[in-house]
Amino acid sequence: MEIIERIKDMQAYSQDLRVEGKVIALVPTMGYLHEGHLSLMREGRKRGDVLVASVFINPTQFSPNEDLDKYPRNFERDRDMMEEVGVDVVFHPRANDVYPEGYQTFVTVDDVSKNLCGLTRPTHFRGVATVVAKLFNCVLPHIAIFGRKDYQQVKVIERMVRDLNMDVGIIGMPIVREPDGLAMSSRNEYLNPKERKAALSLYKAILIVRELFENGERRIGALTDRAIGVIMTEDLARIEYVKLAHPENIDELVGVVWDRALLALADYIGETRLIDTPVLGEEFENC
Amino acid sequence: MEIIERIKDMQAYSQDLRVEGKVIALVPTMGYLHEGHLSLMREGRKRGDVLVASVFINPTQFSPNEDLDKYPRNFERDRDMMEEVGVDVVFHPRANDVYPEGYQTFVTVDDVSKNLCGLTRPTHFRGVATVVAKLFNCVLPHIAIFGRKDYQQVKVIERMVRDLNMDVGIIGMPIVREPDGLAMSSRNEYLNPKERKAALSLYKAILIVRELFENGERRIGALTDRAIGVIMTEDLARIEYVKLAHPENIDELVGVVWDRALLALADYIGETRLIDTPVLGEEFENC
Repeated sequence: MEIIERIKDMQAYSQDLRVEGKVIALVPTMGYLHEGHLSLMREGRKRGDVLVASVFINPTQFSPNEDLDKYPRNFERDRDMMEEVGVDVVFHPRANDVYPEGYQTFVTVDDVSKNLCGLTRPTHFRGVATVVAKLFNCVLPHIAIFGRKDYQQVKVIERMVRDLNMDVGIIGMPIVREPDGLAMSSRNEYLNPKERKAALSLYKAILIVRELFENGERRIGALTDRAIGVIMTEDLARIEYVKLAHPENIDELVGVVWDRALLALADYIGETRLIDTPVLGEEFENC
Repeated sequence: MEIIERIKDMQAYSQDLRVEGKVIALVPTMGYLHEGHLSLMREGRKRGDVLVASVFINPTQFSPNEDLDKYPRNFERDRDMMEEVGVDVVFHPRANDVYPEGYQTFVTVDDVSKNLCGLTRPTHFRGVATVVAKLFNCVLPHIAIFGRKDYQQVKVIERMVRDLNMDVGIIGMPIVREPDGLAMSSRNEYLNPKERKAALSLYKAILIVRELFENGERRIGALTDRAIGVIMTEDLARIEYVKLAHPENIDELVGVVWDRALLALADYIGETRLIDTPVLGEEFENC
């Protein structure tokens, strides 16, 4: 497994691979890997001749009041896990090289960024789209693999790729959960034992909404109210949003669910912000 | 000479060329070609194995009140001129394919877009950066060639390329002028004979500033005041700006010129907006 830090080196490496006709698969990460990331890498291992994983905590997707500085990191552990799962190249650039002095260019994806996390994190998806565009120009992947826990992020990236005519296939993979149902996230690390228990309220709400939905409930108010009720029984939980949204354009749904719907939950458990994003539909995806 | 209209066809064509190791040179245009465009294409002919010229009137760089609808066009004439100058491929996409329904992604280059034309055309450079990013993803050029009459545009594109890690060399070529000194522009077509004569006031102002500068004048007020005075003697001219700006970051200069300086002029002659952008320095470039 090779570790590449310099952008020019990564580009040269990938250009050679492309001339050789190799298929490059990219899994972008912010490190502090868990089983969710590894599931993306295993998929990349199957689909690409060469599997590149990037590890970069992207400052432009954090607001000044967010957890950039304390975001968990452990590169040695990440490296061992990537080696284990068959990553060929780790792209591990430095923030100063990715955003040098005078940096001033951003990619914005308007409509799909507005709802849900875009309401409280207005520059978050601009940072995501920008760094992904940059990573694509560094790694030159044929396909890139993302987790659908960050469901809105996947839609932002899909839209960017289509709109800017990037020739990269985007693959969204299902949420990976802990045995008790908590969606895996590097931020779960922040939870103390009491909070870890309280965090399960999101999944409990999801299961109850699923049951309602499977029993024929299609009224949006009835579905979201039940989810809210379940989460509010948990003292440590503070709801940011509980919404049903269109699974493609992320617009808020009103009235009833006609077809598929994204059940989008964002909650603070203590100081830790957690999200979960199953899709209601013929089958209950991501759950 | 091949004419390609579909984006997917252009990408497939360029991907094959890249596998063959051919150097692709791109000259992006909005058509209605003149000698300025042809000078870019001749440079591209020299530098690339394959010369692609794009012809696309980009709606996102026009404001609603601007001249998108009446922008001059004559594809048959353009085609003959491109054939003559040795273009290999004309990329001529349709607006509906470039910006399909639901389009919502934009590239913004902040600081360098703000001054000069950015003051009166606040979304212009966003449209330019966006379409150039898209053209690069369609044509996959190794180098792209732009005219320095649109000096600020060249700086926006250079900055975008550097910031987003696009592996494209940007080449800016000198202004090409009519025999009497008027900078060539497709918009010169709008001028009636009286206006055509009045348009020369920009060049007259440039020559006088050059003379002052060569005689040692470095005070910015003295230089711009003289240019303004010359243009104001022309009844048909209305000044939008006459400024000296930093030739790299396009910031406004104050006090005195220490080194090189962009002399940026934008004027309406009747209804027609014209710009000229020589650089004051050791040599008087672009003039």
